Amino acid sequence: MITIQELGEQALLAQLQRFSPPDLTGDDAAVLPFPPPDSLVISTDMLVEEVHFSEQTTPGFEVGWRAAAANLSDLAAMGAMPVGITIALGLPGTTPLEWVLNVYEGITACLQPWRSPILGGDVCQSPVRTISITVLGKVPPAQTIYRHGAQAGDWIIATGIHGAARAGLECLLQPDLAKPLDPDYRQTWQIAHQRPFPRLDLVASLQALNTRITGMDSSDGLADAVLQICRASQVGAELWTEQLPIPDGLGDWVGQSTAIAWTLYGGEDFELILILPEKAAQSWLQRVRNSLDLPKNHAPRPIGIITVNPDVCLLFPDQNRQQLDIRQGFQHF
Amino acid sequence: MITIQELGEQALLAQLQRFSPPDLTGDDAAVLPFPPPDSLVISTDMLVEEVHFSEQTTPGFEVGWRAAAANLSDLAAMGAMPVGITIALGLPGTTPLEWVLNVYEGITACLQPWRSPILGGDVCQSPVRTISITVLGKVPPAQTIYRHGAQAGDWIIATGIHGAARAGLECLLQPDLAKPLDPDYRQTWQIAHQRPFPRLDLVASLQALNTRITGMDSSDGLADAVLQICRASQVGAELWTEQLPIPDGLGDWVGQSTAIAWTLYGGEDFELILILPEKAAQSWLQRVRNSLDLPKNHAPRPIGIITVNPDVCLLFPDQNRQQLDIRQGFQHF
Repeated sequence: MITIQELGEQALLAQLQRFSPPDLTGDDAAVLPFPPPDSLVISTDMLVEEVHFSEQTTPGFEVGWRAAAANLSDLAAMGAMPVGITIALGLPGTTPLEWVLNVYEGITACLQPWRSPILGGDVCQSPVRTISITVLGKVPPAQTIYRHGAQAGDWIIATGIHGAARAGLECLLQPDLAKPLDPDYRQTWQIAHQRPFPRLDLVASLQALNTRITGMDSSDGLADAVLQICRASQVGAELWTEQLPIPDGLGDWVGQSTAIAWTLYGGEDFELILILPEKAAQSWLQRVRNSLDLPKNHAPRPIGIITVNPDVCLLFPDQNRQQLDIRQGFQHF
Repeated sequence: MITIQELGEQALLAQLQRFSPPDLTGDDAAVLPFPPPDSLVISTDMLVEEVHFSEQTTPGFEVGWRAAAANLSDLAAMGAMPVGITIALGLPGTTPLEWVLNVYEGITACLQPWRSPILGGDVCQSPVRTISITVLGKVPPAQTIYRHGAQAGDWIIATGIHGAARAGLECLLQPDLAKPLDPDYRQTWQIAHQRPFPRLDLVASLQALNTRITGMDSSDGLADAVLQICRASQVGAELWTEQLPIPDGLGDWVGQSTAIAWTLYGGEDFELILILPEKAAQSWLQRVRNSLDLPKNHAPRPIGIITVNPDVCLLFPDQNRQQLDIRQGFQHF
């Protein structure tokens, strides 16, 4: 009898998707036809202690923040804005109330800029602290962002640096190794890990573009996002090493090759990977750089181009090419 | 530092409700204003192995069925019909694929009569099998059923027998004790436990009544439902012992007093407790008895009356009264 561990996550998801209508799966969230003008968007994430968070790396407030941010990021990836969330908590009876309240406060703080309510949920007993959030959002049907639709020649844009969340996790797990670091770097990376910023701030300007947009969020890594988009769109991609959104100071700390690996495969930065026609890309990049008061880490930048050739490659300055490797991405089992 | 175990579930939920808008909490599901004509309804439930189900009592198919049924029952309790569900699964890597597929098949089977899709979800690693379902539904705003609004003189209706799920659990946990039982009783009760039937079949006839309806589902027991409705409506209730929807044969098996206790406090029958003005109650009972092809177990019947006196009492034929005791209900911690 095959176990899900032996099967691997992708194959498991493929098995489970057979139970859903094909037009409702395969993206960051499900989109429902609903009374005009907006479609309803819904997405769910589950976090489990010692799998996704631990006492050492993530206090209760940040557990709540990250759980909410992961869901809001799924909405941003669809071009949608939040309507509300539900929260299911599984908790050992010995869980301190304070921890639970801290979780709720973290969720509330993450939702606050988007004025999105907690719509209720469930609390039940579990031997392991578990939090499952479902988010509802709305999007004008014509402006929904899917993973399919990228075309050769389109620009690939990353909305901010990648690898910072992975670096922040390392600082929290190995405080001794992090001691020599510039405190500014260390703080930036730990915030990237503990309080990722869902890119709902970009949704309005993307909707205003009124053009063909493909994309998803980079919760499972920049490379994973590019690979998923290329697979769904039946295209390939070239990423340019010198344009990769590597965090300042990371190469000096862990070496350039690890810095590149964390940027491509680290995951949990919750930025967006967007694919735009060249002209729309240029005008949008100019617009957001001028109009938004963006922290440098969260400034969108082009990182590559969509190709007819179905390979997904990293191009080095010496013209060497390296295929992106999905197996280096985050594996859930 | 107080733990949630020390605090108790009700107080924990009261603490958590402070984080939600007051008009969105306190019922079986949250109702959202949404483009007319329907409101969007959303509800979440989490089930954990060894807490809510076990290998001994609940195969994978039935785990899925019950998880879906619990959520659909929350919709029925609001007078809503399902739009779709999301599923978050936390699983040890050693979980057999077959079990996961059985869960999905059980969910699909439970949803099938209502043509309601699985809208997606999440799968993640967890040391304990955990399933969290979120259901979306729709309801015409004027026909939404809340817990508040019951008035003295209203009839209290149970939509089917209660205590059967508790009896079925006992049969599964103690097969030796169940051996002398009539096989028909045993099968009926085990089905009540493993494949409860959410009362969405009653929603259309309730909406057609176009009258004031109060109610909730009896997932935490018949007594709990009556007590919650009375508390929300600031009224009391009298239940009549000889009208209690006790399963046939249960008194002979466990004794009359245990049979009454399971009927009142057993929980997980997923029927509805509805409060209707007398005339509407009479006409609705007649209509559903005539028009629906209801199994005897699922036939609605009056079980008592709403009173000005805020006590919630059980009336015995000898005129003895006994207050219902919420502490006998299902406690989640």
